[in-house]
Amino acid sequence: MTTTRLETFADGVFAIAATLLVLAIEVPDFGGGSLAHELVRLWPSYVAYAVSFATIGIIWVNHHTVLGLLRKADRTFLFINVFFLLCIAFIPFPTKLLATYVRSDNGQAAAVAYGLTLTLTAVLFTIMWRYAIGGGGRLLRVDADRREVDGITRSYGPGIAMYATATVVGIFQAEVSAALYAAIALFYVLSSSLFGREEAVA
Amino acid sequence: MTTTRLETFADGVFAIAATLLVLAIEVPDFGGGSLAHELVRLWPSYVAYAVSFATIGIIWVNHHTVLGLLRKADRTFLFINVFFLLCIAFIPFPTKLLATYVRSDNGQAAAVAYGLTLTLTAVLFTIMWRYAIGGGGRLLRVDADRREVDGITRSYGPGIAMYATATVVGIFQAEVSAALYAAIALFYVLSSSLFGREEAVA
Amino acid sequence: MTTTRLETFADGVFAIAATLLVLAIEVPDFGGGSLAHELVRLWPSYVAYAVSFATIGIIWVNHHTVLGLLRKADRTFLFINVFFLLCIAFIPFPTKLLATYVRSDNGQAAAVAYGLTLTLTAVLFTIMWRYAIGGGGRLLRVDADRREVDGITRSYGPGIAMYATATVVGIFQAEVSAALYAAIALFYVLSSSLFGREEAVA
Amino acid sequence: MTTTRLETFADGVFAIAATLLVLAIEVPDFGGGSLAHELVRLWPSYVAYAVSFATIGIIWVNHHTVLGLLRKADRTFLFINVFFLLCIAFIPFPTKLLATYVRSDNGQAAAVAYGLTLTLTAVLFTIMWRYAIGGGGRLLRVDADRREVDGITRSYGPGIAMYATATVVGIFQAEVSAALYAAIALFYVLSSSLFGREEAVA
Repeated sequence: MTTTRLETFADGVFAIAATLLVLAIEVPDFGGGSLAHELVRLWPSYVAYAVSFATIGIIWVNHHTVLGLLRKADRTFLFINVFFLLCIAFIPFPTKLLATYVRSDNGQAAAVAYGLTLTLTAVLFTIMWRYAIGGGGRLLRVDADRREVDGITRSYGPGIAMYATATVVGIFQAEVSAALYAAIALFYVLSSSLFGREEAVA
Repeated sequence: MTTTRLETFADGVFAIAATLLVLAIEVPDFGGGSLAHELVRLWPSYVAYAVSFATIGIIWVNHHTVLGLLRKADRTFLFINVFFLLCIAFIPFPTKLLATYVRSDNGQAAAVAYGLTLTLTAVLFTIMWRYAIGGGGRLLRVDADRREVDGITRSYGPGIAMYATATVVGIFQAEVSAALYAAIALFYVLSSSLFGREEAVA
Repeated sequence: MTTTRLETFADGVFAIAATLLVLAIEVPDFGGGSLAHELVRLWPSYVAYAVSFATIGIIWVNHHTVLGLLRKADRTFLFINVFFLLCIAFIPFPTKLLATYVRSDNGQAAAVAYGLTLTLTAVLFTIMWRYAIGGGGRLLRVDADRREVDGITRSYGPGIAMYATATVVGIFQAEVSAALYAAIALFYVLSSSLFGREEAVA
Repeated sequence: MTTTRLETFADGVFAIAATLLVLAIEVPDFGGGSLAHELVRLWPSYVAYAVSFATIGIIWVNHHTVLGLLRKADRTFLFINVFFLLCIAFIPFPTKLLATYVRSDNGQAAAVAYGLTLTLTAVLFTIMWRYAIGGGGRLLRVDADRREVDGITRSYGPGIAMYATATVVGIFQAEVSAALYAAIALFYVLSSSLFGREEAVA
């Protein structure tokens, strides 16, 4: 089986999970108050939406990079992907939690739920990659560049540690933890873009 | 008509149905209580989400295997697929029922609703497959391997019986029935993966 | 511009509109009552879900048939399609109305809302088709069979009249109108399948 | 990386965002009143749905036009697209606001929220286009027609100004602002279609 069919299904889940994030933004009943005021007060929801959308976008770009290096997908790889996509599709739930509760007494629980989801996603992404390159390059293209493969292993490695750290921080400080999730997304966007430009220069 | 267009539509329904499952997970109003406590109490929702997502993933993999063996799709086959996808897209509803009610007095009704949906899905999958291979291999590729076709007929056969059994169990014992649905999903994931590996060995 | 990109977008809208139908099915608060009893009482929701899903599936099959006869799409054709898809994506709303109100005093309004949506969809489908074949076969493939083109014009023609009739019936009798919507879907599924088989015989 | 994968993801987001718009239309509790009366009263929701759906459709057509002129996508371009799609997927939220509040005391806030979203979308579309044609046609096909490229730059340019103007109007007059959003959509549909026909004549 080629990787094309997997890409269609995965792209569907990525696109839907990202687009469903907007359903988490709801204007609460504000009685006789002002909508403008309420819309401003909802700012954590917009930030959470943007961070989660960008995060899903980054993972989507990385998922494509990985699949582009593979010559085929076996059934084990497909099922690892099903569990990986299960995590992606779950992201709207902790995103809503974080947006709703980050500034309340229950912020820590929301921050930890968000962090656990993204840590698990990173773990499954790593398992997927290790399985593909394991067994002497089980699923790799014959012409896959060894240095590119090693570069990916290096660059995806820290993801688990970064999300795990932000999760642990969330046990004590919800808002710092949320800022870390945003910083990780920003870091990936910037480093990839800069990296992409350097590549064009080289 | 080739099977490509059907695959696009089907992949869309599979991906959306799987991703919509997350909308069933909602934090109930917990008054002045603790969010952490509520999130732990919601564990049946996470399990139901994971089992249904994995089940849809398994059926998606199997649907691809079937379409990969066909050389074309006629209109009857398309309409059988529409009814099959109608069942797939319905799965989020009984999943929410099961997650919400499995541990309550109404658990049996939820377990039976879940089971009936998956039994009907299995029935339509079988009708789809029988129609495709019927009439002397009506829609089969000319080069389809007879042993592979027989192997699929054998391996998909027990699905109806397994889901029907778990449904009947649900009339009496909701939690046992739910455990059976999870076990069926696990069985398919493991057997496929192991089978996939043996294949690579052979 | 080829028709491929339009197909991707259209298939997405078809698949999502069909899959969103399930969100219209909700168990009302039943106090200390029985879930089993409530699930049985919800049967109009299941029928409405199935009829709308099948109807969207039929229109999807027909849309494919049309696009398969075209050699290109111009911008006017694209925008007609946008308005056609706008109607398709609207279907979940009147479906929910019909499921909720068909057996109540407000059944007529729901039946008319459902009928108007499908009548408008049929009108836009016809405009799309007339535009494509107008101007001396503006967008038709050079090798499009004249008899096939005429056959499509004939077979899609009655759709508007059938839905308009059922809508008018809905002003007086909601349940009869709803039965007509189901009958129209059934008629299309059966005639297509039978037609498909005859074709194979000929 | 070719632009194909980006198109799949983008088409998914476009299709889902457009189809999710329907979830914003809800019949409020009307006590013992008449559903027919309520459905008529909901007309701003239908208009908002149609305007937003058509707007997303127009942007989708334009996005395709742009991608059709590119020979490749680099990672910077991908991430600009992620932020662009983030805006597209956000549109259902201000659409619901506008539909709900346009005729109330809070209409201005809703009109401004809608306008800011579409202005930002237009800004990101322009950034995407400028990046693609910048650096001496960084991502352009070698055979891209200079006049077509200049024509696109000219025709997309006014979008930001038009939406910014309608947003400013919204600070004072919600209903006038809403009419402007509809007029902009109508203008793009008509000019494109007329333009398309002139092209066929020429």
